[in-house]
Amino acid sequence: MTAIAHRSEHDLLGYRDVPAEVYWGIHTLRARENFPITGMPISAHPYLIEALAAVKEAAARANEELGLLEPRKAAAIIEACREIRDGKLHDQFVVDVIQGGAGTSTNMNANEVVANRALELLGQARGEYGFLHPNEDVNLGQSTNDVYPTAVKIATVYAVRGLLKAMAVLQDAFAAKAVQFRDVLKMGRTQLQDAVPMTLGQEFSAYAVMLEEDRSRLAEAVELIHEINLGATAIGTGLNAPAGYAESARRHLSQITGLPLVTAVNLVEATQDCGAFVQMSGVLKRIAVKLSKSCNDLRLLSSGPRAGLNEINLPPVQAGSSIMPGKVNPVIPEVVNQVAFEVIGNDVTITMAAEAGQLQLNAFEPVILHSLSQSITHLQRACLTLAERCVAGITANTEALRAAVENSIGLVTALNPYIGYEAATGIAKEALATGRGVAELVLAKGLLPAGTLAELLRPEVVAGPGQALV
Amino acid sequence: MTAIAHRSEHDLLGYRDVPAEVYWGIHTLRARENFPITGMPISAHPYLIEALAAVKEAAARANEELGLLEPRKAAAIIEACREIRDGKLHDQFVVDVIQGGAGTSTNMNANEVVANRALELLGQARGEYGFLHPNEDVNLGQSTNDVYPTAVKIATVYAVRGLLKAMAVLQDAFAAKAVQFRDVLKMGRTQLQDAVPMTLGQEFSAYAVMLEEDRSRLAEAVELIHEINLGATAIGTGLNAPAGYAESARRHLSQITGLPLVTAVNLVEATQDCGAFVQMSGVLKRIAVKLSKSCNDLRLLSSGPRAGLNEINLPPVQAGSSIMPGKVNPVIPEVVNQVAFEVIGNDVTITMAAEAGQLQLNAFEPVILHSLSQSITHLQRACLTLAERCVAGITANTEALRAAVENSIGLVTALNPYIGYEAATGIAKEALATGRGVAELVLAKGLLPAGTLAELLRPEVVAGPGQALV
Amino acid sequence: MTAIAHRSEHDLLGYRDVPAEVYWGIHTLRARENFPITGMPISAHPYLIEALAAVKEAAARANEELGLLEPRKAAAIIEACREIRDGKLHDQFVVDVIQGGAGTSTNMNANEVVANRALELLGQARGEYGFLHPNEDVNLGQSTNDVYPTAVKIATVYAVRGLLKAMAVLQDAFAAKAVQFRDVLKMGRTQLQDAVPMTLGQEFSAYAVMLEEDRSRLAEAVELIHEINLGATAIGTGLNAPAGYAESARRHLSQITGLPLVTAVNLVEATQDCGAFVQMSGVLKRIAVKLSKSCNDLRLLSSGPRAGLNEINLPPVQAGSSIMPGKVNPVIPEVVNQVAFEVIGNDVTITMAAEAGQLQLNAFEPVILHSLSQSITHLQRACLTLAERCVAGITANTEALRAAVENSIGLVTALNPYIGYEAATGIAKEALATGRGVAELVLAKGLLPAGTLAELLRPEVVAGPGQALV
Amino acid sequence: MTAIAHRSEHDLLGYRDVPAEVYWGIHTLRARENFPITGMPISAHPYLIEALAAVKEAAARANEELGLLEPRKAAAIIEACREIRDGKLHDQFVVDVIQGGAGTSTNMNANEVVANRALELLGQARGEYGFLHPNEDVNLGQSTNDVYPTAVKIATVYAVRGLLKAMAVLQDAFAAKAVQFRDVLKMGRTQLQDAVPMTLGQEFSAYAVMLEEDRSRLAEAVELIHEINLGATAIGTGLNAPAGYAESARRHLSQITGLPLVTAVNLVEATQDCGAFVQMSGVLKRIAVKLSKSCNDLRLLSSGPRAGLNEINLPPVQAGSSIMPGKVNPVIPEVVNQVAFEVIGNDVTITMAAEAGQLQLNAFEPVILHSLSQSITHLQRACLTLAERCVAGITANTEALRAAVENSIGLVTALNPYIGYEAATGIAKEALATGRGVAELVLAKGLLPAGTLAELLRPEVVAGPGQALV
Repeated sequence: MTAIAHRSEHDLLGYRDVPAEVYWGIHTLRARENFPITGMPISAHPYLIEALAAVKEAAARANEELGLLEPRKAAAIIEACREIRDGKLHDQFVVDVIQGGAGTSTNMNANEVVANRALELLGQARGEYGFLHPNEDVNLGQSTNDVYPTAVKIATVYAVRGLLKAMAVLQDAFAAKAVQFRDVLKMGRTQLQDAVPMTLGQEFSAYAVMLEEDRSRLAEAVELIHEINLGATAIGTGLNAPAGYAESARRHLSQITGLPLVTAVNLVEATQDCGAFVQMSGVLKRIAVKLSKSCNDLRLLSSGPRAGLNEINLPPVQAGSSIMPGKVNPVIPEVVNQVAFEVIGNDVTITMAAEAGQLQLNAFEPVILHSLSQSITHLQRACLTLAERCVAGITANTEALRAAVENSIGLVTALNPYIGYEAATGIAKEALATGRGVAELVLAKGLLPAGTLAELLRPEVVAGPGQALV
Repeated sequence: MTAIAHRSEHDLLGYRDVPAEVYWGIHTLRARENFPITGMPISAHPYLIEALAAVKEAAARANEELGLLEPRKAAAIIEACREIRDGKLHDQFVVDVIQGGAGTSTNMNANEVVANRALELLGQARGEYGFLHPNEDVNLGQSTNDVYPTAVKIATVYAVRGLLKAMAVLQDAFAAKAVQFRDVLKMGRTQLQDAVPMTLGQEFSAYAVMLEEDRSRLAEAVELIHEINLGATAIGTGLNAPAGYAESARRHLSQITGLPLVTAVNLVEATQDCGAFVQMSGVLKRIAVKLSKSCNDLRLLSSGPRAGLNEINLPPVQAGSSIMPGKVNPVIPEVVNQVAFEVIGNDVTITMAAEAGQLQLNAFEPVILHSLSQSITHLQRACLTLAERCVAGITANTEALRAAVENSIGLVTALNPYIGYEAATGIAKEALATGRGVAELVLAKGLLPAGTLAELLRPEVVAGPGQALV
Repeated sequence: MTAIAHRSEHDLLGYRDVPAEVYWGIHTLRARENFPITGMPISAHPYLIEALAAVKEAAARANEELGLLEPRKAAAIIEACREIRDGKLHDQFVVDVIQGGAGTSTNMNANEVVANRALELLGQARGEYGFLHPNEDVNLGQSTNDVYPTAVKIATVYAVRGLLKAMAVLQDAFAAKAVQFRDVLKMGRTQLQDAVPMTLGQEFSAYAVMLEEDRSRLAEAVELIHEINLGATAIGTGLNAPAGYAESARRHLSQITGLPLVTAVNLVEATQDCGAFVQMSGVLKRIAVKLSKSCNDLRLLSSGPRAGLNEINLPPVQAGSSIMPGKVNPVIPEVVNQVAFEVIGNDVTITMAAEAGQLQLNAFEPVILHSLSQSITHLQRACLTLAERCVAGITANTEALRAAVENSIGLVTALNPYIGYEAATGIAKEALATGRGVAELVLAKGLLPAGTLAELLRPEVVAGPGQALV
Repeated sequence: MTAIAHRSEHDLLGYRDVPAEVYWGIHTLRARENFPITGMPISAHPYLIEALAAVKEAAARANEELGLLEPRKAAAIIEACREIRDGKLHDQFVVDVIQGGAGTSTNMNANEVVANRALELLGQARGEYGFLHPNEDVNLGQSTNDVYPTAVKIATVYAVRGLLKAMAVLQDAFAAKAVQFRDVLKMGRTQLQDAVPMTLGQEFSAYAVMLEEDRSRLAEAVELIHEINLGATAIGTGLNAPAGYAESARRHLSQITGLPLVTAVNLVEATQDCGAFVQMSGVLKRIAVKLSKSCNDLRLLSSGPRAGLNEINLPPVQAGSSIMPGKVNPVIPEVVNQVAFEVIGNDVTITMAAEAGQLQLNAFEPVILHSLSQSITHLQRACLTLAERCVAGITANTEALRAAVENSIGLVTALNPYIGYEAATGIAKEALATGRGVAELVLAKGLLPAGTLAELLRPEVVAGPGQALV
């Protein structure tokens, strides 16, 4: 039975049986045994698999171009890589997302899958590495230490593109509400205390602008990710990579991925440095902070329905309680908050992993990739969910909002320039103590004529900069 | 087709078709649509599923005991819960691990699965809630806000027990090495600079002691997790839970789980508080910090083989490089480092989620459970992997270690009490400048007679406290 | 001029002039030049200075007892240490709080100050180390690596005692409010949505209980800090410390400080381990998380005065705005929030510093001490400020709170057991849609007789567990 | 006595005596009492004081220009502001760095100092606010909510300029070493294991390049800080700020500070948003991570002197031990590590403070400013200290480095392209097992002719990309 169902492979440590039907080989087998940590295979990050295949194809093309790889072998490798990029072999990428070895096991997994599929395409049996070898042919001129960071960068660029789109969708949803609520007057608040009037449209436009700025920062950060170290081999000295290889491989990789990749000027630095990932994670954290703040606001503004602020209504998307009938909770903002907390935690993980790099290499890039990929993907889904299942359906309690402005003490601030801070302070104090209105008190004390007061306190006037004095 | 393959259910928001073959219902359906974040179902945390079933069974028993639930219904619910605890229905727990709603969707998912399986056991069709209802029967006297935290605590206790065992395995592995290396003399280092002699056994015994202390801390922290709020219902006032319910449910739950659970004295506080989870995560972080430090040391001590410290050899577990033949890397310590970074990041996530609780509830417990569960599980696997695939196979380069001691300048410290700090400083300086040995210089300068010196510098003497003066 | 105003000292690196009037010497001089980081001297942590003096005194007593130090020298050292503990020489502790060298410069600073003051007491000039030497006499039998961690632990114990008292003050303030507000009915909230009724006293009692639990955790964590490594010398092997020294020094130190100190069993482990500090910081973080949550609540409950929840009033302690007259802000809770954020950040700093320890020593204890000391001290002041300037003066808007309960939809939950979840859901939905009251609808639909309904909905009944069914 | 030594001032809460000799007033007095947290006054951040004075001057100029402030008053205010910027009144800025109120107390402190100094310049007594008022004149057209963030941004720009210069100094120090060590051959390492040859110059050039890239990122991040919200007043609607005020104030502020400031397009968003500070802190964290990594490397490479890598020598800057004579420790890199840990912790503090902003304002900017200012300043000093006291004096142990290369197994990698991965693996394995040299084995097995081998293994060849094949 075993003779049929397995094939034997060997490495530095000896011989092992590998299931006959899999494309991966002995290195992958050992890695699976060595890293039984999360149970999550690297195929959980599909962009990484696609990027690895793109790198392997680019290397094969470059090696062929330089006369180092037979055209027949190169063609088989390229075809295998394309199948991978088409998603046909993702289930063969089985090593754990958290793994030791700086990504070596991921690279080995890729080399073995590409080699065995290429062998099949060449009419050979899997494991017949004499015809085409995972390390000597598929990995030719490469090292994990240039292949892996390059693939991680490409995967990150792919993922960030999706996030940028999702952020744009959310920005549009907020912007649409800003237009819809442009005339809804409400009290602005500072430090949770009534401040001065504004419109609900202004409030929502702030969320849209925040996202716009975050998108700009993210677009800048992803630019840095286009710098790769392919051709660096083990430590950046390019040992074993022939002259012209780095340039050729980069050119093919740009063509395959459609990305304007550049090769780092100092490959020794580029091979050990994780700065671009720390920067990217920092920007993701910024996005998370502001998304979380916006969701905190949405939950606060929709608190109630009767003993809360009750300014806006989030669309109900599920029953809110297993015990309290009719209760509807802000579950969509709440899930976004949690994604934000996760992203902020991931940033600490990435920071520690980056700081722990030593000398010519950072051995901890797998957890950086894993954390970064989760942060990006979860943020993307959180943005879409928030846009579609919450923001798009928000309605305003317009009448209650206007009544709160008219009943507010904060209106007195508008009188500050006319009656002075000290008089205004007195009015505010008295209004608070007696429950009387600000306007009523100003008139009773003869501080302003009625007509002037009415004009100054016209709520629509007070929400726009400078108009009060026109 | 649809008429056959689906059943119709309704909730606060209206009617929806649910696939006929699933045990979950409309609340779960909506949650799946609302929270498409990680793609990881709550069944990825199997202890949580088991704990939920235990809570549901305990509640059913209590309700039956109090005459609130018909014995026939109670029996069906209890039987369904036992099947779940036996792992038969885990695939029905499908809501996302990161979800809004304070765990409501997880509780609803459990209520629906229990109800539908119980209905089958009663000979009814799934969805025939007129006979047995997810909320009115399965969730009777409960709220998500007491069920969910209680289940999270039980799940955490289960998981921590596994971690404690794994830590003991690792401690034993280090302790065995401490015995094995008890006579291997080597240089101790402070600030990476040669300090004074010690034995390799002392070095490894420190790792064992660290783990022993961490186990004590973890055992203390898990004690706090035995305090539950079952019976609190929505906010801790126990509304809708009859007199005697909390006590009865706790008693049954203790019996079912075998855990000495206690009901919190102040249920309002217990319902909103996440302190025990923050404490637990803090202890996990402590464990992570020290595991990471130990792994840093192992990687450092095994650096080389020729241009490193080369004091110990880690067993090779896989080929280390796709390009550098014969290279073997410390991949097992490296993967443990990464788990530690993840745990430290998770602690920040948990901290933020706990801090974000508002008023009578913390809505963010799902991400706390998810992060905590991952931290515990990954640490457990990391400890076992480290013990079995690394520590157990470590060997020492005994001769080189001894030679380094004899060649060291740090030996001069042992002469400090005899020749004084200033003279010793001079000897050290000269040894460093000239490359000559400390002993040679002391004799040449006539600072000590040869016999005394030899006795004082006997390496075995200097590694033990106080013996030098005996 | 210089000849008069300076004295010349020398070390490993050569000769340097030290100002004649200072008690510190050349090692301190160099440290000041090497670490110009924060500008904050270690005297900013006065407990550390006192603890260092206690350790030096204990060591002198032990050395005298063992016949290693002349009684005359010992007496002078002990007298100098007592002056330091009385606060007379704090301005001589001038090295920066953030310093390289594992605390060596702090220890050297202490050795020099003690030595020079002792020399004066012996009638000698400062710098006349031939009579009494900073390293050979004051530091006799010691190493920075046992002195410094021991002093840090004692300083931490002192500081934590102050924090425990401040937390008790705050707990009492909350508990007093819990009593005062025991009959004030209000709506409880989950996920910021109206849930079910409770009393304001219950709400405040939760804050008191949280603090009580946190105090227990802190008291447990500080217990661990009583384990010291004095006698370990450089790396825990006790090299140069004579037999009996560790025991004698510990005994004297316990007597001097009044603390039940114990010597670690494994001194090699104790010398490198920072676990107790990580644990302590984790507990401080837990306290910070819950203080922050409580302050978030206070700010939320006092939001308004007119467009907020307006449930409670915080005492005004300063004008709230430079522009908005009459505005009073929750500045005391806000400052506590910020202290909490600082403590949480410090925990990450401490975590990283602890993780970075290598082999036999953690070189980064100075930043651990600095961060820990700030966390403890700032938390202490935050607790006192919160108690005295905020909580003690809180008042409740009792009438508005009761009205909100009577107007709430959440009351329907109390009917759940009588009319069932589905009927209750319908009532809630209709109340929400129409603005009508829950009671009104229940009666109109004939779901319950009026008398029963009145009894069940008596607000005082619904805030207590189980009473509703009596 | 008191009548002479104090003046009486009043605010919303009543009358209080203020010491006659101080320039600050009642608002500052109350703030000091309310926030006794750190004991560190805001003058500890001198750039903030200067920036506040610049903002106050710009506002006075704008108000005069718009005809809202009498020229005589304006002139006095402007003169007072200039004195502050000249550092003459820093001791009057006494409120605590951690304070509630979104910076209100800092703004009030500034208003009072400017007003009282201006009153003196006008020939009036301090406290005679009838002539010139802190709020009505000095704060005219302003709010804490636009003044404070604007001042924080200007202060940050000033501070970052200093950091950029310090980083350039450090970069130059590393670059000089890269040149000096350009021909020093050594073993490169990945995962702490011997990898392939490189030069020490390449190693140091990587540190220089890292700093160059970090400087670029920092320069980009500081650009974002030039966007201000002056003119937004309380919440961004510009209430009370006349038409033209924002533009005029910005123009004057740019002129005063020499900075190309721009007013944010959406002032509501700009007033509540802390994104630019989060971004800045994220970049500081990136710098910290890489500085820490570089210092870890320096400590590792200089480990020894005899039982370590001993590749380079850091210049001794102080005696390393109170007990071990002659020991010199890497104290400068160690202090830089600790600053990095502090910066990383501060980033978490800033993140939490930013996330906690609610609705139209972030009340927690004081702790953001405090943390950010400390991070920048400490990093600046750390860079200078590292450059001047460590990097500049590093020397290399050239002979030992070359010997390690010649003795290495990693050289076999260079033979990979000629003898294949599998054969190379075998050679490596045998070299490791037998202690024999790689070259010796290759020749013995006839895998390559001697001449070819010699050429391929010429160490100088293998450290440069592609040359091996030329």
